Amino acid sequence: KTYKITLLPGDGIGPEIIQVAIDLLKAIAPKFDLGFEFETALAGGAAIDATGHPLPEETLKLCQASDAVLLAAVGGDKWDTLPSHLRPEQALLGLRGGMGLFANLRPAKILPQLIDASSLKREVIEGVDIMVVRELTGGIYFGKPKGVFADEDGTKRGVNSMTYAAPEIDRIGKVAFEAARKRGKKLVSVDKANVLEVSQLWRDRITALAATYPDIQLSHMYVDNAAMQLVRWPKQFDVIVTGNLFGDILSDEAAMLTGSIGMLPSASLGDPEKPGLFEPVHGSAPDIAGQDLANPIAQILSAAMMLRYGLGEAAAAGAIERVVEKVLDAGKRTGDIMADGCEKLGCKAMGEALLAA
Amino acid sequence: KTYKITLLPGDGIGPEIIQVAIDLLKAIAPKFDLGFEFETALAGGAAIDATGHPLPEETLKLCQASDAVLLAAVGGDKWDTLPSHLRPEQALLGLRGGMGLFANLRPAKILPQLIDASSLKREVIEGVDIMVVRELTGGIYFGKPKGVFADEDGTKRGVNSMTYAAPEIDRIGKVAFEAARKRGKKLVSVDKANVLEVSQLWRDRITALAATYPDIQLSHMYVDNAAMQLVRWPKQFDVIVTGNLFGDILSDEAAMLTGSIGMLPSASLGDPEKPGLFEPVHGSAPDIAGQDLANPIAQILSAAMMLRYGLGEAAAAGAIERVVEKVLDAGKRTGDIMADGCEKLGCKAMGEALLAA
Ligand SMILES: CC(C)[C@H](C(=O)O)[C@@H](O)C(=O)O
Ligand SMILES: CC(C)[C@H](C(=O)O)[C@@H](O)C(=O)O
Repeated sequence: KTYKITLLPGDGIGPEIIQVAIDLLKAIAPKFDLGFEFETALAGGAAIDATGHPLPEETLKLCQASDAVLLAAVGGDKWDTLPSHLRPEQALLGLRGGMGLFANLRPAKILPQLIDASSLKREVIEGVDIMVVRELTGGIYFGKPKGVFADEDGTKRGVNSMTYAAPEIDRIGKVAFEAARKRGKKLVSVDKANVLEVSQLWRDRITALAATYPDIQLSHMYVDNAAMQLVRWPKQFDVIVTGNLFGDILSDEAAMLTGSIGMLPSASLGDPEKPGLFEPVHGSAPDIAGQDLANPIAQILSAAMMLRYGLGEAAAAGAIERVVEKVLDAGKRTGDIMADGCEKLGCKAMGEALLAA
Repeated sequence: KTYKITLLPGDGIGPEIIQVAIDLLKAIAPKFDLGFEFETALAGGAAIDATGHPLPEETLKLCQASDAVLLAAVGGDKWDTLPSHLRPEQALLGLRGGMGLFANLRPAKILPQLIDASSLKREVIEGVDIMVVRELTGGIYFGKPKGVFADEDGTKRGVNSMTYAAPEIDRIGKVAFEAARKRGKKLVSVDKANVLEVSQLWRDRITALAATYPDIQLSHMYVDNAAMQLVRWPKQFDVIVTGNLFGDILSDEAAMLTGSIGMLPSASLGDPEKPGLFEPVHGSAPDIAGQDLANPIAQILSAAMMLRYGLGEAAAAGAIERVVEKVLDAGKRTGDIMADGCEKLGCKAMGEALLAA
């Protein structure tokens, strides 16, 4: 089978790390009888420089017409002074909205080889394996009214609206219950129902859904408590489901618990018939761009997520994940995850090691 | 000088721990030529049981007419099935609104005696001393419209509004800059200005304020990154200023970094001419209530914050803080912070040890 993949290298280290993923995908393709047609498009700062807009219409159309989208990273200081609707991040928001990617899956899994990279004690972090399911096209990111307005007396007032409609909650809830079913069968729904009405509706809907998933153990947690519990004892979590803003905060916190965000991939999914988007959790790291220092593993594992969740090619995904483990077991590391007694590689050399494995 | 203090013991372990604070305040009063007139009032679940309302009018009036309010903790499973406007937490929101307490100061300081209680590695947590300044009477906690509404087609939709007016941002900003001036002179303002217009206004106003505080080093951080950086390297922070919701999440995360939230006090302040409210960061712990197991130290340190920030009695505050250190240095611990080789005390015995010191 041949898949059409849109590549969005973006900015900073993006082009370097995505190249490693392309090489690896090409290398495994014949082994699993797969074909890939790659097409590269502009997004983020690169698109701003070339076209004046972070997400050109052409890019969005290409993405919508492909089988999956592999993105590297967008952004950089260079574009930080632009008005906000013209900044690189708008490419992400535009892709999420334009492709209907309402479910963001963000695993925070600690690899045994990298336990020491964490700022947490070994006994606290060892074995942590959390999946954050974040709602991605609703909530305060897209709610209206929004803007900066003047009160009658001229006072400036900023406004954003956190809104969720029942069907939006139901569909992300289902994704989370299904994810829990394939994992440890425990789901924690995070909200702020003791203060926010939108959270009360969230809690009601998730609770109602639970009737359809009697095999899943559901509990609810306030967002402030969740932020604490992630630090205190992260092993208590299996799957976490939450809204867009809380998910943004908690998935980053969970990612940092592992100490190696250069290792973490993510998937953004919508209608199962339509393409998903796969990208590393880390950013574009402009400070090390072009110096062959970047860690390509999060990008590689994003390609694995693309195979598993986007294309239904679980065997090929597993092969990529095993290659990563093998290289780590052999003591090969990029600078960001370097440890005593390991061999330090640049981005390209890491790519070659992965290919060889 | 004699001060009128309103006591709100609240629920769970509240009455036990506040008694220790009363005893200690009485004991130090003559040494600093102070007098305290204590009056106790109902709030939280205790008030619901007695009057049907979590914050009786009478309680609010008494608080408003006093020099300072010392609260222990409210809440418990017992009242969790009540409609949300009748739950114990409403007492907190009502006091904040009714007393105009717009500034919440939440220190997260690691005591050298308690480093091992943290889930973070010693070298990461040692010396951490963060002050979170959280806006407490605005943002999404109070913004309108809010509620659960039906769309035209009958779909249920939950809505809350995150709004800040420029003067609200300015006044909390000033509190934070002043706090930074008395500490390490570094201020990080946390927002989500890459997505939210209300955050753009927040960032503009805080940036403008910085001109008045040339001695303070101001930087800005997105809330997701702040949640990560607190885990990665908390020592980078001195004072953090942020809105109500982000402050709720980040101050709890920061508190948990220390591993001993039974030790952390907080202050909620408004107009300097009016009374402030002082309370532990921890909750009412109904599971251990009435068993003489609670740690009274956060309550004691809240009394110290009351003396320092509420009554301007810094010398007396310092005396209380030194007493706590002395008792910890002597190896005395309650169960929640127990460590090898230390002596385990109940709540009352800890109170006696503090009095003796
Ligand atoms: C860049 C920003 C708009 C984005 C978000 O807030 O969603 C990022 O933090 C993320 O999590 O993908
Ligand atoms: C109980 C709740 C309403 C409250 C809040 O969210 O402000 C609490 O979490 C706090 O931080 O004091």
